[in-house]
Amino acid sequence: MQIASRLITYNAHSRENPPQITVAAGEEFMAQTELCTGSWLHSLADTWSPEKTNALNPTVCVGVADAHPGDILAVHIREIIPDALGYTGFNDQKNPLAGRIKARTWGLNVKTVAITAEGIRWNNQLSLPVRPMIGTLGTAPAGEARSNAWGGLHGGNMDVQEIRAGTTVYLPVFVEGALLHIGDVHALQGDGEINCSGGIECRAEVRLSADLIRQARPLRCVRAEDSESLMTIACGRGLTRTFQTATGELLDWICRDYGIPVNDAYLLLGQVMQARCTQFVNPTRSYICKIPKRYLPLRSSPQPMTP
Amino acid sequence: MQIASRLITYNAHSRENPPQITVAAGEEFMAQTELCTGSWLHSLADTWSPEKTNALNPTVCVGVADAHPGDILAVHIREIIPDALGYTGFNDQKNPLAGRIKARTWGLNVKTVAITAEGIRWNNQLSLPVRPMIGTLGTAPAGEARSNAWGGLHGGNMDVQEIRAGTTVYLPVFVEGALLHIGDVHALQGDGEINCSGGIECRAEVRLSADLIRQARPLRCVRAEDSESLMTIACGRGLTRTFQTATGELLDWICRDYGIPVNDAYLLLGQVMQARCTQFVNPTRSYICKIPKRYLPLRSSPQPMTP
Repeated sequence: MQIASRLITYNAHSRENPPQITVAAGEEFMAQTELCTGSWLHSLADTWSPEKTNALNPTVCVGVADAHPGDILAVHIREIIPDALGYTGFNDQKNPLAGRIKARTWGLNVKTVAITAEGIRWNNQLSLPVRPMIGTLGTAPAGEARSNAWGGLHGGNMDVQEIRAGTTVYLPVFVEGALLHIGDVHALQGDGEINCSGGIECRAEVRLSADLIRQARPLRCVRAEDSESLMTIACGRGLTRTFQTATGELLDWICRDYGIPVNDAYLLLGQVMQARCTQFVNPTRSYICKIPKRYLPLRSSPQPMTP
Repeated sequence: MQIASRLITYNAHSRENPPQITVAAGEEFMAQTELCTGSWLHSLADTWSPEKTNALNPTVCVGVADAHPGDILAVHIREIIPDALGYTGFNDQKNPLAGRIKARTWGLNVKTVAITAEGIRWNNQLSLPVRPMIGTLGTAPAGEARSNAWGGLHGGNMDVQEIRAGTTVYLPVFVEGALLHIGDVHALQGDGEINCSGGIECRAEVRLSADLIRQARPLRCVRAEDSESLMTIACGRGLTRTFQTATGELLDWICRDYGIPVNDAYLLLGQVMQARCTQFVNPTRSYICKIPKRYLPLRSSPQPMTP
């Protein structure tokens, strides 16, 4: 299995980033992801402080052979194995949300934790569940590079818990080879990710594969799917707009691929749509909208998303 | 059991509304709630149209003996029995969200459904689950009346799915007798309630009781609790602010009543908080933030929320 090592990472999704490996459609590969703040964490005694940050949400870069602009990359997340060490923390100088909520000086607050098969050791009394997810996953944009702090139509720093093992994420291909960027795994994350620099940030080994959907209809935001649900994820500055974009894309999806008339589909979403803003601290916020598949007719087309 | 009948309803939470019944603390009572648009729905053949609306989110009003300003009313929702008829619908003239999402003319779209023990009959192929909730539940404000379209510190039109049987809702008491307003039951509702006039809107019979917490600490937003979670609900125009208010109130709650230092509590919420805007179409939006109780120490005080 080809491995994209964390020894080479990037701080932006860019068409200029040479991929470390190039895989064929359907080929399983491994991405070794780095911590969101770089390579400083090596023992339980290491704790984060701002000057230790030596990278901005670093990602590895993987090429997909024969991916062309206009295709959609269907990224299948097979497994996420978090490292045994993780951390979280916030700093009132760097965290607008904390300051606004409490209007007080928090100072620097950090925590380094052991991640085991039994859970995340929060303290002597409390163990938290391990629910690993990929915080940053996206393709290279056609034009200028996008910072790894940002999310958008290309994916990027979405910070959505549903981007986990068992999920397929549909991303537009803008450049030859797609240039899939992967990083920022969290062993656990709450909605809002209010600590700013994190959920339980950790390195990870992620097994993935990617299929290509040729000449697909353009997406207005990222789509994703697991055995339970269809999901759409919109990232942007304004919450109302991201909610509307994600809702609109979910509506289009269930109308076109499941043959539900648009007005009926909208009425149905009013009853059963699930929606959350999972990210309330980045420059771009992420809204995920979901519909459980059990409310949908059997899919009429075996090849979704094609014209 | 005393019954507050739907024959007398109000369109605002107001200190001027005479309560239909007055109950003692702990006394179980029944509220017969009316449809959000009034009394027009009588058969499966009846469908909503704007001119049929003859009330704005009508509520019954119940007094609680010996409730005084400064108390908190702990409203225990025992059971919600929805009527056998429900409806949902939207109208592009009345629904800003639909227009913004699709930038198209939708016209009037309505659906009347049968609600049975087996589910909501959406169409011949699809049955939706019955998950009844109280859309509007609040106390009378001290000052001017608040329209039943609005939510706020007094509760009101929150439209949060978690306000269901098994949940206790904590509301501030502003006037003698509290004047609890109850209405707008939904047999089911999706996040965002994007149809504007509804989830599955229905009449219902709701069994409740209310306890008093004397001279409690002031709340900044509504609190609620069930066997699984602590929850805070903030309603207002701006999503960022409602998120911050609900998060801040949840933080205060777990610090004060569970003895967690504030910085540790904030770090913990960053990992395990669940949050949703459940209402995206009213004049006020509702943000609910939750923490599962299994992540909290055993409560140090048997009398939460007191100074």
